[in-house]
Amino acid sequence: MKLVKNNAGRFVPTEVNGQKQIPFKGIDKFKPTGSKAKPLIRTCIDYPKNGNKIVKDLKTALKKAGLKDGMTISTHHHLRNGDIVTNILFDTIKEMKVKNIRWFPSASFPVHEHLIKYLEDGTIHHIEGSMNGPLGKFTSEGKMKGVGVLRSHGGRYQAIQDGEVHIDIAVIAAPASDSFGNANGVQGKSACGGLGFALADSEYADKVIVVTDNLVPFPCVPWQIQGNNVDYVVQVDSLGDPSKIVSGTTEITKSPDRLLIAKYIAEFMEAAGIVKNGFSFQAGAGGISLAFIPFLKEKMKALGVKARFVRGGSTKYLVELLKEGLTDYILDGQTFDLEGVRSMRENTSHIMTSPFTSYNFHGKGNFASIVDAAILGATEVDINFNANVVTHSDGYLLHGIGGWQNCLYSKCTILAVPSFRDRIPVIVDEVTTLCGPGELIDVIITERGIAINPLRKDLIKAVKNSSLPIRSIKEIQKEVYEICGGAPQKPKVDKNKVVAIVKWVDGTVLDSVYRVI
Amino acid sequence: MKLVKNNAGRFVPTEVNGQKQIPFKGIDKFKPTGSKAKPLIRTCIDYPKNGNKIVKDLKTALKKAGLKDGMTISTHHHLRNGDIVTNILFDTIKEMKVKNIRWFPSASFPVHEHLIKYLEDGTIHHIEGSMNGPLGKFTSEGKMKGVGVLRSHGGRYQAIQDGEVHIDIAVIAAPASDSFGNANGVQGKSACGGLGFALADSEYADKVIVVTDNLVPFPCVPWQIQGNNVDYVVQVDSLGDPSKIVSGTTEITKSPDRLLIAKYIAEFMEAAGIVKNGFSFQAGAGGISLAFIPFLKEKMKALGVKARFVRGGSTKYLVELLKEGLTDYILDGQTFDLEGVRSMRENTSHIMTSPFTSYNFHGKGNFASIVDAAILGATEVDINFNANVVTHSDGYLLHGIGGWQNCLYSKCTILAVPSFRDRIPVIVDEVTTLCGPGELIDVIITERGIAINPLRKDLIKAVKNSSLPIRSIKEIQKEVYEICGGAPQKPKVDKNKVVAIVKWVDGTVLDSVYRVI
Repeated sequence: MKLVKNNAGRFVPTEVNGQKQIPFKGIDKFKPTGSKAKPLIRTCIDYPKNGNKIVKDLKTALKKAGLKDGMTISTHHHLRNGDIVTNILFDTIKEMKVKNIRWFPSASFPVHEHLIKYLEDGTIHHIEGSMNGPLGKFTSEGKMKGVGVLRSHGGRYQAIQDGEVHIDIAVIAAPASDSFGNANGVQGKSACGGLGFALADSEYADKVIVVTDNLVPFPCVPWQIQGNNVDYVVQVDSLGDPSKIVSGTTEITKSPDRLLIAKYIAEFMEAAGIVKNGFSFQAGAGGISLAFIPFLKEKMKALGVKARFVRGGSTKYLVELLKEGLTDYILDGQTFDLEGVRSMRENTSHIMTSPFTSYNFHGKGNFASIVDAAILGATEVDINFNANVVTHSDGYLLHGIGGWQNCLYSKCTILAVPSFRDRIPVIVDEVTTLCGPGELIDVIITERGIAINPLRKDLIKAVKNSSLPIRSIKEIQKEVYEICGGAPQKPKVDKNKVVAIVKWVDGTVLDSVYRVI
Repeated sequence: MKLVKNNAGRFVPTEVNGQKQIPFKGIDKFKPTGSKAKPLIRTCIDYPKNGNKIVKDLKTALKKAGLKDGMTISTHHHLRNGDIVTNILFDTIKEMKVKNIRWFPSASFPVHEHLIKYLEDGTIHHIEGSMNGPLGKFTSEGKMKGVGVLRSHGGRYQAIQDGEVHIDIAVIAAPASDSFGNANGVQGKSACGGLGFALADSEYADKVIVVTDNLVPFPCVPWQIQGNNVDYVVQVDSLGDPSKIVSGTTEITKSPDRLLIAKYIAEFMEAAGIVKNGFSFQAGAGGISLAFIPFLKEKMKALGVKARFVRGGSTKYLVELLKEGLTDYILDGQTFDLEGVRSMRENTSHIMTSPFTSYNFHGKGNFASIVDAAILGATEVDINFNANVVTHSDGYLLHGIGGWQNCLYSKCTILAVPSFRDRIPVIVDEVTTLCGPGELIDVIITERGIAINPLRKDLIKAVKNSSLPIRSIKEIQKEVYEICGGAPQKPKVDKNKVVAIVKWVDGTVLDSVYRVI
């Protein structure tokens, strides 16, 4: 495998799994040429006139879809760790004796540890998609046949749209569907919220199979997935374990350090002048992100300020903002708890968004850069404000990128991180894996102080007279190294063996993940 | 121009405006090959990061969009006869001295008579889209430089999707829009309901310009048109005359003959067993279609029957069904009156549909064939159940196809027509222009009796014991000819001079419209 140094100074392969790759060229430097992928023209002649696309079972659907060796099969991760559809899907593929599948999930979870045997026996050739937990570890150990490809949510849409990844068969688990294939995620016992991560799959895959445990009479409304893009509908008893699909409740951290970080975020946003009428922010479902919302809410109330929109991953904390009239809209990419699902189902101001609207970098703009502030996490940050979200300091690949890279385009990107975890410093000299270039990261907030990127002179000026603990990133790092006994150990990896690549939002290759030895 | 006889026995050109054409091959006989149109890949780099795409005026937007001679410019007809945007658009194009535009509206209205001067002076080369009234007459007289191309709503989506018509610049008049280009038709002083007819344009045009008289802060919700497909936003004082965009009220016919037809429709549907729990129907906004709804409603109440969905063109009569719990949903393609607009804005069970979901024949099925009964009109029907909706018996092209052809795929297609108009028989030996082949038309209902297509033995059997005036089509025709003094005069047309073609839903050419002499 030939590696070249890209514009971020990282070594990346020029070819992966037989596909040519473009090394990262710098932020906003790579301009795509050419046309989008062009799905085949279909005709109503080939589909049942009465709209009923139900077939007996998943195996029948896969047969009709022409499943064969080497195909690309996509799934979505809206069922999270409660998903059993993907496991049954690969049990079925194995039973059909089909080999060398490229599995293209929007993400995988610990529940998919079940698939390791199929990675081992050649049913699955490799995974393109984030690998949370066991599959990431498996990959890190160099056991996967092909090379993993990690993309952001927006990057996944971009890759499908641009024809970089052609999906042969998309399998879409749907908490509600009619026999025509109109489907949504807000109704039924397996309700998970929006189904936006399956949108590109439904639009561009050759064959689309909807699997549901809740068949409703036509029309299934809302149709987050449009039946006009669907080939077959399969009815099953259950999509998975509802308690693991969404949380019953999401609880805020009780850690004093993390609560302090959360408080700093709200204070920083106020001091920087971000918290004003009509503003917007995005917060994920991580502990600190959740904890910051109540602090921000108090400020909004005190200032008499209303947001125009807030972006989720939605939880009950965002839903409360909407219910209390503190925001006009929730623009939701992913729904994390029961309150979020209920709100999306019942409240017309709780809007499902998709990676197309929110994150696709190869569109005519997207929502991410319109957001006033994004509050994100990281596994590591470095003294140049670069950040890592996929590997730990020991080199293991344990997380996906999610919408993280896409959100870096917000007007003020704040990474909220504890300064160390398990006595391992989070602020390092150089991140193990580069996922976000420092020039897009504006502020790093830790319990020991707030570091503002020197590029953001406006922010530095805005908070100059505040009582916030503004410090240089190196100063914070030094303090942490003293506490932890120095820099983390370098990961032991084989720099000749790339096990996965990290794509940037424009489809270029930002960094490599290496085999852990 | 070379004409060949197609499968319906009609003479059609093999080439139109320099584009090769496929003659009609029969119902469900033409299978498309190849891939959909492939729009260029865009990048956020080329669009404002803050999402603000507003430019000074329409001229600036057209300049930036690269307007030049010979381009294809599309518009939609949701503003109906109140539209001034299209007229201003062509005033601007004229001012910019650009020539030979192919104008590709989803329909044109009498208000667009303003454009005849541009057809005469070469600003517009020809029109592809329905031409209601003056532009149709102009075309019939052989005055248009190119040949008109008439398509159904579904056929228009199909033509764009399949790459048969490439739109250079789409101009989308939007009653509400944000600066990013998210737009809808349900809010503001020019509210017109859904904007579904502009969907394909927004997805496939090279450049998309949204023109609005109601700029709202991001996000404009619902986004019937997605800003991620939009290049420029132009603010104007007014999109047109609200009183002509939608009717204040739609009134039911008072004609005894037409009321009798309306009553027969409801009775026929009951007798045929269509009116049962979970059924569906589509009715347009024509006089008889409207009048039939109250009759049907009484039957539904008497039978204790609820529809699963009804399809519009919506009016207050459909809205009443929804409000009274007689249907679960309105699936609405076009909104005709203020009550319809209000209902779509406020009632989450009043759903906007698009030509993609409802009518596109080159999708994986569509909604039209799922509908239990469609009640449609016609300018002429013939003794073989063929029908015409675009020309009159004098040969003049005065109407568009609309969704009419697409709706013929319903499970029971009923044409409701007076047996004569202005003493001219509506039932003829052979229609002047073939728009719908008889094998898809199941029932013709007139005030003088109901004719069932002999192909539909099931329907004949179902209503055998009813008291309905079931008669043969020839018997009804004979009676009408006696009243009117025989068959209508043959239109005086030049069969060597095709002024427009009628496309079938699959893109093939069904018939020709000739110059009136």
